Amino acid sequence: MSGDLKDYLKTVVSHVDTALDDYLPFPGEAPGAIHEAMRYTIFAGGKRLRPVLCIAAAEACGGTETLAIKAACAVELMHTYSLVHDDLPCMDDDDLRRGRPTCHKVYGEGMAVLCGDALLTESFTLLAKSEPSEGYTVGEMISELAVAGGSRKLIGGQVLDLEGEGQQLSKEQLLAIHEAKTGALLVSALRLGGMTANASAKQLAALSDFGYSLGLAFQVIDDILDVTQTTKSLGKTAGKDVAANKSTYPSVWGLEESKKEAERLTRDALNALEIFGERGVRLREIAEWMLAREY
Amino acid sequence: MSGDLKDYLKTVVSHVDTALDDYLPFPGEAPGAIHEAMRYTIFAGGKRLRPVLCIAAAEACGGTETLAIKAACAVELMHTYSLVHDDLPCMDDDDLRRGRPTCHKVYGEGMAVLCGDALLTESFTLLAKSEPSEGYTVGEMISELAVAGGSRKLIGGQVLDLEGEGQQLSKEQLLAIHEAKTGALLVSALRLGGMTANASAKQLAALSDFGYSLGLAFQVIDDILDVTQTTKSLGKTAGKDVAANKSTYPSVWGLEESKKEAERLTRDALNALEIFGERGVRLREIAEWMLAREY
Repeated sequence: MSGDLKDYLKTVVSHVDTALDDYLPFPGEAPGAIHEAMRYTIFAGGKRLRPVLCIAAAEACGGTETLAIKAACAVELMHTYSLVHDDLPCMDDDDLRRGRPTCHKVYGEGMAVLCGDALLTESFTLLAKSEPSEGYTVGEMISELAVAGGSRKLIGGQVLDLEGEGQQLSKEQLLAIHEAKTGALLVSALRLGGMTANASAKQLAALSDFGYSLGLAFQVIDDILDVTQTTKSLGKTAGKDVAANKSTYPSVWGLEESKKEAERLTRDALNALEIFGERGVRLREIAEWMLAREY
Repeated sequence: MSGDLKDYLKTVVSHVDTALDDYLPFPGEAPGAIHEAMRYTIFAGGKRLRPVLCIAAAEACGGTETLAIKAACAVELMHTYSLVHDDLPCMDDDDLRRGRPTCHKVYGEGMAVLCGDALLTESFTLLAKSEPSEGYTVGEMISELAVAGGSRKLIGGQVLDLEGEGQQLSKEQLLAIHEAKTGALLVSALRLGGMTANASAKQLAALSDFGYSLGLAFQVIDDILDVTQTTKSLGKTAGKDVAANKSTYPSVWGLEESKKEAERLTRDALNALEIFGERGVRLREIAEWMLAREY
């Protein structure tokens, strides 16, 4: 990673963290238990990929971090809720997340369900406080996020994932799951950033293409890492997909083919950025950094 | 109930059901399982109290059913999600709801969590499609619903409820739980209806007062019925509060005092409607009907 990108990420992530700290209810506010749980899961050392992408997309369209930061934080709240619920015993049953015990391990299952519910609801409370841009109302921004998080996308992907457990899926089924489960929210993060910057329809379409390829590339790499890395280096349980007999890119395509697919998707993602010219440099750097993980 | 009110309720409920049927994804749409679960829980024979109140509040402020119906359905989606999650084994662990097996009994726990998530998300998708009124943006309407559904209100009430299980609560604690768990969403349904009708600040405040007293009165009566009625007549497990050693109005105040409290709250609710004059008649009739259950 270039020193310049490193500084950029550090600055943006620190602004996002400060904003989240401002927006979330205080831990001492009643009922204390849920506000503590919300903060435990939000401030768990995540990389804030989605907020960073949201803000960089706004900048690529001529906007600013200031205008995009509420949308950026809203997307992070939605992402975090989905992790909290996916980790539940009745879903993926995960004990570790980002190297720490998952929400239900610390606060119990009932509280983890409510914590996820609250983060999801808060994402809309926050987005509703956004300023509209010239071309987009707050209602349109909310619609963008709600559709991406809905039963056809984010939640639908988790449904397909649950249903596919223990089955050998086809390449198409696997793509459909990841497009819904990972891709939709990345795309939405980028588009929301664009909307705060009054992006043109062409720019929004380019952000969608970029996010689609980036999301899939990221997931392919994630699946590869689950096979090739240790629990410690991942900060979450490694080899879990294989243990759960879950279909992954390596299990469907083989490891070598998966690596080639990751490279192809990465190229597609970068090509989609061409229309942004110089302003798209930051998005390109972030994509290269996201996809350059050791495998 | 007057024949006139009966007709009104029948008509409004049928319009709300048709609208919900239009708005929700088709049961056959992929992933089919979750769309089936969403419809199972939404079309479970609920009384649609919140949508009816939303629409009647709009009319009390000079608005129309047509302008209020998206908000009315959005509130019902949020209410239903909260029931689905509250019924989960890790929460209230309820097998019956409106006389039918609860969502997780039919579709499994993982799907019930996701079904609730999807209903919650869909409530915002739908509300985002509303028309703004002269005085209120769609963002303000979303904020109204999201705050009522958030960790300080609807969800917070469930947290307090979980924490209070097995403990003898004070009068104040019990009020706080019910104001958050039942009252906030009733208030929000009414205020949203008012907002679609471009209500004045005074009218919104009156709707808040009305909803607050109505919600508490309704809960007191619900608690009384849990003691005095059978499972069959309630359509849900009777005597459950006592069995769970849960604090209720009868257990804290005694049965007679609870009945008096219900009457006092009912009077407060009706008094709050005075500023609406003739236009408030429908809200008054609905309140009298809601609170006139046999106990």
